[in-house]
Amino acid sequence: MYRITVIPGDGIGGEVMDAALTVLDAVDLEFEFTLAEAGDGCFRRCGETIPDETIRLVRKADATLFGAVTTVPGQKSAIITLRRELDLFANLRPVRSLPGVPCLYPDLDFVIVRENTEDLYVGDEEYTSDGAVARRVITRAASERIVRFAFDYAVGDGRGGVTAVHKANVLKKTDGIFREVFYEVASSYPQVEANDYYVDATAMYLITQPHEFDVIVTTNMFGDILSDEAAALVGGLGVAPSANIGKKNAIFEPVHGSAPQIAGKNIANPTAMILSTALMLKHLKKPQEAQKIQEALERVLKKGVMTPDLGGTATTSGMADAVRKEVLEL
Amino acid sequence: MYRITVIPGDGIGGEVMDAALTVLDAVDLEFEFTLAEAGDGCFRRCGETIPDETIRLVRKADATLFGAVTTVPGQKSAIITLRRELDLFANLRPVRSLPGVPCLYPDLDFVIVRENTEDLYVGDEEYTSDGAVARRVITRAASERIVRFAFDYAVGDGRGGVTAVHKANVLKKTDGIFREVFYEVASSYPQVEANDYYVDATAMYLITQPHEFDVIVTTNMFGDILSDEAAALVGGLGVAPSANIGKKNAIFEPVHGSAPQIAGKNIANPTAMILSTALMLKHLKKPQEAQKIQEALERVLKKGVMTPDLGGTATTSGMADAVRKEVLEL
Ligand SMILES: CC(C)[C@H](C(=O)O)[C@@H](O)C(=O)O
Ligand SMILES: CC(C)[C@H](C(=O)O)[C@@H](O)C(=O)O
Repeated sequence: MYRITVIPGDGIGGEVMDAALTVLDAVDLEFEFTLAEAGDGCFRRCGETIPDETIRLVRKADATLFGAVTTVPGQKSAIITLRRELDLFANLRPVRSLPGVPCLYPDLDFVIVRENTEDLYVGDEEYTSDGAVARRVITRAASERIVRFAFDYAVGDGRGGVTAVHKANVLKKTDGIFREVFYEVASSYPQVEANDYYVDATAMYLITQPHEFDVIVTTNMFGDILSDEAAALVGGLGVAPSANIGKKNAIFEPVHGSAPQIAGKNIANPTAMILSTALMLKHLKKPQEAQKIQEALERVLKKGVMTPDLGGTATTSGMADAVRKEVLEL
Repeated sequence: MYRITVIPGDGIGGEVMDAALTVLDAVDLEFEFTLAEAGDGCFRRCGETIPDETIRLVRKADATLFGAVTTVPGQKSAIITLRRELDLFANLRPVRSLPGVPCLYPDLDFVIVRENTEDLYVGDEEYTSDGAVARRVITRAASERIVRFAFDYAVGDGRGGVTAVHKANVLKKTDGIFREVFYEVASSYPQVEANDYYVDATAMYLITQPHEFDVIVTTNMFGDILSDEAAALVGGLGVAPSANIGKKNAIFEPVHGSAPQIAGKNIANPTAMILSTALMLKHLKKPQEAQKIQEALERVLKKGVMTPDLGGTATTSGMADAVRKEVLEL
């Protein structure tokens, strides 16, 4: 039995979460779901975007599903707080083409591993007399941890190469450390190829030669930018899942936001949230069940059952029901 | 008469510079060229990657053409030093599809204006007990200057909109200032549309909806990444020109590097360097002559006269001669 904390959030968060749970329910595993709150709606009700109770529920769960939240400027970001509080140091972003989904490259399959706790995300900024300064923190420990995660992931997933992405020609010390640690760790994985690129070159190669990538490992901000770029190659945010993984806890979330303008219309694309539950099952060491969801979803997309953002006419719940049906048949 | 300082640099720098000068020579204007040194070859000869004499020659020129340099790790970057010393605060990167050049979008035409002096490029890093910290400096003054440049450019170039790109949801103070200044400045340009996006979303939109962009203005590091990404949309670094513009001086350079592996073979693509000279002429208030070079180059490309990187069989000098001929006929 798996204890899953469920945070629907704001906007379309609830709808895509319902869709994902509809699908998950068809898998032959036992779950105990606990609902938790976060985001702007939560703030209006209880004065906090991320209550302690939610953090507690995420901490004691085997895994957490996170829909999407609206973050009003000035508010504390729920997801950044969760990543930091629970030390979810690895942000995993698979980049995988899906059948029938309009995209630039129909045959991509690589993974971006983004460091999730430091860099410009430490929230250490101050005003100065003429502007402001932010601190970009890179530690050896966090670099080593994320690089090791990337290599372990490559080995576990049968992938042949890991590419480090950095800007060590300008950030000689911070990214110098990242690159150095990368090759130190790489030397204990002789069976995996290791290379490195500058972040600007990578932004270009993702478009001109994306097939050469297998696993990319990079620092937090570069990972934020490159993973959205990479998502665009295979159909956009509507189909991009992600995992935030720590030593003890893990949160699975679509890369997209809460899209308030389409909320409540039953037209939001549930693909990214459904794929996020598949990532969760893989993380919970249930690869066959994860594969079932992936497979079921692909069958449905192949039939052209998709939401309007992908050019289809299906509703959110309609797509969920279709995927559920395929899961039950597999 | 225009005094032009010419810095060929390393690798293919000399070849593409020769090509550009061949073309420039066909334009009906008078130039006085002064050669200057920079880069790794210069370092081997005189112990410096960017001698004071070179900086002096750039300072007193009406404009400078810069080929490409090899920067060995540990060496001082010639181009970053020049940008900083001469306060070349605006890095202009046109993104424009060219006829016949294989690319994702055959009809793009927008410009990225990148702040060129601060952000993570201030070179303020230090080691700490557990890693290193870099300071990201954003000032009101530099933000205002670059935003104003972008709006003036939009007006001068007949462009309808300027988009600010930032990450103010995470960098609340530094990018908060950038966004705030952007809208302050925007209010004095009511005829130009102003909007703003997060950098990660922009990395996606450049692929999914690039036609909506007109002028993008952004901070230094984001500009570095996004402009390489954008270059990939229209054929890659081989065709991407750029300008570094200050109050008094300006340097024009291809975005590509010195590509030592193909140096000396007369196969380097001179397009980016030739387009950089066109940018220079525009900057020197010779838009008709700039247009001639652009037009001549496009005619040559349309005929399929291009270097191997673009799928052609022309040599560097062969392409230069062909463009020169067209200029003379225009
Ligand atoms: C919402 C935002 C703070 C977040 C980030 O920058 O990490 C998002 O872009 C993401 O990638 O999960
Ligand atoms: C060579 C490097 C330091 C430089 C930069 O990062 O600015 C280059 O990538 C560029 O865009 O001109």
